[in-house]
This record gives sequence, structure tokens and C-alpha cells, in this order.
Amino acid sequence: MKRLILILLLCGPMVSIQAQQNDSIVIRQLFDQVLTQGQCYQWLDYLSNQIGGRLSGSPQAAAAIEYTRQVMLSQGFDTVWLQPVIVPHWVRGRAEQGKIVNSKIIGTTDLQVCALGNSVPTPAAGISAPVVEVHNWKELDALGEAGIKGKIVFFNTPMEARYITTFRAYGEAVQYRWAGAGRAAKYGALAMLVRSMTLAHDDNPHTGSMGYPDDENIAHIPAMAVSTNDADLLDELLQNDPDFNLYLWTECHFLPDVPSFNVIGEIKGSEHPEEIITLGGHIDSWDTGHGAHDDGAGCVQSIQVLSLFKQLGIRPKRTIRAVMFINEENGGRGGLQYAALAKEHPNDKYIAAIESDAGGFAPRGFGVKTDDKNKLQKIASWAPLLKPYEIESIVPGYGGADIHHLEEAGAVLIGLRPESQRYFDYHHTAIDTFDKINRRELELGAGCMAALVYLLSEYGL
Amino acid sequence: MKRLILILLLCGPMVSIQAQQNDSIVIRQLFDQVLTQGQCYQWLDYLSNQIGGRLSGSPQAAAAIEYTRQVMLSQGFDTVWLQPVIVPHWVRGRAEQGKIVNSKIIGTTDLQVCALGNSVPTPAAGISAPVVEVHNWKELDALGEAGIKGKIVFFNTPMEARYITTFRAYGEAVQYRWAGAGRAAKYGALAMLVRSMTLAHDDNPHTGSMGYPDDENIAHIPAMAVSTNDADLLDELLQNDPDFNLYLWTECHFLPDVPSFNVIGEIKGSEHPEEIITLGGHIDSWDTGHGAHDDGAGCVQSIQVLSLFKQLGIRPKRTIRAVMFINEENGGRGGLQYAALAKEHPNDKYIAAIESDAGGFAPRGFGVKTDDKNKLQKIASWAPLLKPYEIESIVPGYGGADIHHLEEAGAVLIGLRPESQRYFDYHHTAIDTFDKINRRELELGAGCMAALVYLLSEYGL
Repeated sequence: MKRLILILLLCGPMVSIQAQQNDSIVIRQLFDQVLTQGQCYQWLDYLSNQIGGRLSGSPQAAAAIEYTRQVMLSQGFDTVWLQPVIVPHWVRGRAEQGKIVNSKIIGTTDLQVCALGNSVPTPAAGISAPVVEVHNWKELDALGEAGIKGKIVFFNTPMEARYITTFRAYGEAVQYRWAGAGRAAKYGALAMLVRSMTLAHDDNPHTGSMGYPDDENIAHIPAMAVSTNDADLLDELLQNDPDFNLYLWTECHFLPDVPSFNVIGEIKGSEHPEEIITLGGHIDSWDTGHGAHDDGAGCVQSIQVLSLFKQLGIRPKRTIRAVMFINEENGGRGGLQYAALAKEHPNDKYIAAIESDAGGFAPRGFGVKTDDKNKLQKIASWAPLLKPYEIESIVPGYGGADIHHLEEAGAVLIGLRPESQRYFDYHHTAIDTFDKINRRELELGAGCMAALVYLLSEYGL
Repeated sequence: MKRLILILLLCGPMVSIQAQQNDSIVIRQLFDQVLTQGQCYQWLDYLSNQIGGRLSGSPQAAAAIEYTRQVMLSQGFDTVWLQPVIVPHWVRGRAEQGKIVNSKIIGTTDLQVCALGNSVPTPAAGISAPVVEVHNWKELDALGEAGIKGKIVFFNTPMEARYITTFRAYGEAVQYRWAGAGRAAKYGALAMLVRSMTLAHDDNPHTGSMGYPDDENIAHIPAMAVSTNDADLLDELLQNDPDFNLYLWTECHFLPDVPSFNVIGEIKGSEHPEEIITLGGHIDSWDTGHGAHDDGAGCVQSIQVLSLFKQLGIRPKRTIRAVMFINEENGGRGGLQYAALAKEHPNDKYIAAIESDAGGFAPRGFGVKTDDKNKLQKIASWAPLLKPYEIESIVPGYGGADIHHLEEAGAVLIGLRPESQRYFDYHHTAIDTFDKINRRELELGAGCMAALVYLLSEYGL
């Protein structure tokens, strides 16, 4: 008996070291393959330059769905299918207009503006009204109806430059974009204009979704964004010459909902096919740019991961799925619909989901969302295997907008964390284009996802 | 006595915790300042767009020296001075020409080429000769005089895509650029053409320095680089239709040496003025682009560090110096001359030197070069203070080309390690321009250098 224990004690670590050595060899193969034979860069080129911006309900969204379906089929996955999703169909219409009108200092001057996603249009003649600037809810509430009624409210809250991670700064500031119109309308505002969500100082207005409060008594007023340079101009002007009008015009509006799809590609697990590891990005993007970083990158990386398994002949022990989620940007219906699968198939276990929706930049780590400390610890214990690939942190964090409904199904949610400094320079603008993508950074992100998927598929959770 | 020991034991850690808290507050101030009031981005804009490429001996190099001197004076450093350095003066002349001539498949076709720095010119009529392709020294030596004499040798060794850090791939491949001409001339080659040192597949030829062997019997033959796309074209053509000539023309040549300068700005240490912490980048750059990443970034970051100390009223305990080294690219004479200061002033102690010459990208760590394990350990022990700023590694590594002569003077050499994936896309090309710089990434690099300089100036080594 003692001898048996001794043997077990000796074998345990040896098996573990052996397993780690095998794992590190496979992970090396995954990276070698993606860095020398990766296809995700070409796929993203097509998605960005041949299809372009692809907001839910648009012809381009349909094209992107069909394109990624065909790519997955060409890669020989076990199954590729479309999951129906009814999506909202918001359209921007012709280019928006914003103007400073009759300023004593600068006369009439164009501003760089764009409508926020989900906004109602202005009247056909536009809105012309005085502007009142606020920096937070407290200032808005202090002004109240007396200060706001009949005016355009300008939310001018810069993202906090002192935060190192830009996502933290975005997370704090984005509440004004999302909810500013509703809160201003409560006090009788005619429209709202928000400073673009970026740390850059430039002329690009940043769109993004907004929502109206679920309250019949609050009017739906147009909501638009202004470039940071023009936000600074407005701010300066309001201090020196507040007696001007702001003119805003947009014809953006909703059309009836449209049938659309999530695209799902799968490789069946050899030992635990019922345990499912989901990875994905969202296939819709804003219409202003080409959705290269947001989130074409995450889509092609996810397809690449499954391709790497196929190309290297690695049969995963658990089922792995690449999902192109539809409608992340202005509704989130694709993520919701995908999570419904877990309820429809109660024998399937959605053990983990990985999302790449923070840009195709050099990967730096993973954020893990789970209440189960043992699962977190298990994933974090793989960090040494990823360190040679410059993944330095596997820490508690955010998973992703498309996968978060899978938490109910018991999935651990994991978000790829790329270098964050450049993301909000391009995010939701006309300059989120393919030329901003670095091939190797994109491939390294796919490699890191593949490595983690491999470990999850080998060892489960 | 026992009580005294107890008190000491209790106080030791408390003092240390207190010191760490103070340090972390100062470091936070340095980052807040650079991220909200940083000027390095504007300085780099001027250096790149108003001055441009600034090879040693050029009028632009003189302008860059004078500009950075003026910037340092404007920042109120204790002393700003020019250290004379005699530099080589190599000029490219008119645009180089490279052509495939009389190929049966593609006829006569232009190639994207450029002369390597320090190369001799071709004869005025150019060189037209058959090409022989090699991938390494072994293949070259195997061909010998019989296979090489009267031909142009084409070194086609791609940087290794499987390495995660691009600098490793560069370090391995660059030997062919540096020494290829001499090794080929030994066998009677008429000229050498090298595949550009980059992992990108594009049309930009990458210049960079080369050297001839110190041997009178070996001819100095022209040395040029070809874009990676055209290197692939040549490779394909040589496999299918080797009977064509390659035509190369360049009028590049040396002019007489020129008096130039290192620019040095200093803040005197309050407690140990004789202990000197050097930080810097090189002010010269290749002539083909604007030297934005290589190495305008390192220059303006170094000035920024001293500025942050001035702006925040931090008097360093040890002397800190920002040095704009001249002639890193094609001679290294600035670094050599600066190191001579240590010999001229034997009472000064050059305790540490930090170089930023790996691009103005998001900082990821520091490499430390020292034989003294205690010093390495001391610097590495500061890592937790830098972790909040996404500096994840302080490890043994390379210092920098300009500071390496300071090792003799006893200095620990430290290199800033930014994210490396994009660097060699731009390095030594026409596209190393200001638009490739991200403001926050540049500022974060300066912040990390400032934090390390602060700790070195507080605690010494």
C-alpha cells in the first residue's frame, strides 16, 4: 500500500509535467500555424473592403453572414448552420448635418456630427435651438426644466485620460451617450448632442447605440454625437459667446424588423460532445466605417481558431463552436438567441465562452467572469503555457456583450484583452477600416484564443 | 536590546511600506501629468513633419539637434549643452533603380529597391548581371567563386515569422544586410541585394546600415535592399526563368566627415549629484522616412521625462540626463563619444542608462543588462509599482545601441520594451512617419521611463 502511494505520488507530478509538455508542443504548433499559414487577415480584408459596414438588417449584414458561412464551409467544419434571429433595422439615411448658426465670433460653421444608433430623426426642417452644456447628471438635474426646456443639451464629458486601460474610461463615459437623450427629454430638451467616446482629439464623430426610457411620458428626441475637436469648439464658444443656435438634422429612423441569423460553425468533441466551448465575435458593425476592428477581427479570429484545429488534425475532446453573433451593436438579439439554445437543449453543457470584441490588436491577456473560484483558478493555472506568447494576465474581468447571457447556462465567460490604446481612436467611426489592422497582431490574438480553446477542450472545467 | 531589535523589525517593513506608498503616489503623478499635459507628441510632430529624415551630416540632422536643444532650454533644465561629435556623412543621392531586364516571362520590370547605408555607388551606367539567390552563408560558401563571380548575389532570408518578438527575428536576419556584400565580394560578386528586414509583405524597401570587411583584398561592392514583395517575385522568377539580368543603379556615396553633436540636458541630483542616470534616444534617422518611431519617439520621450520632473517639482536625488545621441544609424559615434565623458570625469558615476529605441508603441516592459544580480534584483523588485501601468516584465535583456559603451563605466543598461509587432513594418522606410504614432502609447512609454528614472534617482543602485 505504501509503495502504491509512493508510486502515485511520483507518477502524479510526472503525468502532469508530461501533459504540460504535450500541451506546450500543441500550443506551439497552433501559433506556428497561424503565424505562417493564417488566413484570418485575408478574410478580414474581404469582410472590410468587399462588404464593408454591416449594420443589422442591411444588405451588407446579409452578405457578411453568407460570406462567413461560406468560409466556414470551405474550412471543413463538421457542421455549419444559420440560427434565425429577428433583428431591428435602423437606417441612418443621408449624411447628418450639424451647424453653429449666427455666432458673433465664428458666424455659421459646420460641425462633424452623426446620429446615434436607434435615434429618432429630427423634423424634416431640422432643429435649431440654443445649447446648454452639461458634464454629468448632477449638472443636468441642477439646470432642470427652467434651464433645459426648448434647448439642445450638449453632454461634454471627456473620457478620462488618466486611466491606463481605455475600456475603463469608455465604461464610465458611455452612460451619457446611451441615456443622455432620455434624461434630457425629461426636462423638455429638443435634442441631445454628446461628445464622441474617444481619447483622440480629431474630427471623427463616433456613433454607437442609445436607448429611450420605457416611459410614455418622456418624448423621444434626436440623439447625435459630435467630434471631440468640435466638442471643444462648442465648449469654448459657449464660454465666450453663448448666444448662438445649434442646428441639427438627421433622417435616421427604424424600418420594420428583419429576419437575420447567427452563423455557427462546429467541430464535435470526441470524448464529451455534449460539453460546448463557444467562441465568437459579432458579425454586424456600424455603418459609418468598415467594422474592421469592431468586430470583423473577432469574427475572423474565431473562424481561424477552428480552422487551426482542422489544419493540424487536432480533434478536440469537447465540442468547439465559432459563432458570428448578429446585432451586438444595436440590440444584442443574436447573443440572446444563441443563449436560448442552451435552454432548448438541456443536455448540452455550455462550459465556457470566449469573445473577441476589443479590437484585433496585440493580445495581452484574458478576462474571466465566473463566480466559481475553482474554475477561475484552473484557467489561471494555464498562464505559464501562454506566457511565451506574451499573454501576461489571466484575471477576473469582463467576458463580452454577446456571450453574457450564457452565464445563466453555467458558462465561464472569457474576454480576449488586446492592447487597448488605439481601439477608441477608430471605434464606431468612418476610420475603422482594414488598414488599421496589423496582420501579426490579428493572428496572435487568434493563436491565444486557439491555445485557450485547446486547453478548455482537453481538460474541461 | 531585544526591544530594539523588535522595534527595528517592526519599523523596517513599515518604513518600506511607507516608502512604497510614497513612490506609488509620485509614479501616479508622473503618469497623470504625461497623459493630460504631455508635450512629447507635439515635439515629435515637429521633428517628423517640420524637419523629417535626419541622417548624420545632413542639414536636417543639424536642425533636429538645434530643435531639441531649444526644447530642452524651454523646459528649464539645469544645464543644456552640445557635446561635439565628428560624424560620417553618407548621402543617398537621387532615387535608386532596380530592374529585372529581359525576362522571358515578365520582360523588363521595375523593382522597389534602395541603397543600404554606407554602400558605395554602382558605376554611373549601373550594374547589369545575372542573379544568384542564397538563403544563408552556407549556401553562399557552397556556390563559391564558380557560382558567384560576375553575378549579383541576392540574399533572400525572410525574418522568422514564428518568433513572437519581432526583434528576435530581426536580430537573426540582419547579419545578411550588414555583412552580405563583403562575404559575396570575396567570391567575386558585382553587387548584393538583400530582402528587406520586415515581416510585412509589401512594396517598401528597408534601408539600414552595412559594413565592408577590413580587408584590402575584398572589393567594396554596392549593397541594396529590395521590398519583400519584389524579393518574392525574384525568387519565383529565378525558379521558372533564371535567364534574366538584374540591373541596379545608385549614386550613394560618402562625403567628408562633418562636425555634429550629441544634445544633453541635465537636472542635477540634490543628494548624489555625481551619480548619473542617463536616458535617451538617437536624434539621427534614416533619410527615406521621417524617423518618427526610429527614433524620434525615444528622443521626445527622454526630454519628456525630465520635463515631468520639472513640472511636478520633483528634485531628483541623483543627476538625470536626457541625451539625444547622434549617428546611431550609420556609425554609432554619438554613443561612443558620450561614453568618453565617463573617462574624462572619473569622479562621476554612470550608474544606469535607459534607452528607448524600439518604437513609440505601448510599453510592455524593460530589458536589463548587467552582470550584477543584486542590481537586477533591485530593479526587478520595483515591478509591482509599474504593474498598474501595464508594465509586465522587468527581465534580463538588451539595453540599447547608444548606451552600450556605458557598460564599461559600470552602468546598468536598460531598454524600454514596447509592443513589437508593428515596428518592423515601418523601420528604415519611407512610411516611418508621424501618422503611425499613437499619442497615448508614446506618452505611456515616457511615463514608464519617468517612473523608473524616479526610482533609480531615489534609491540608486
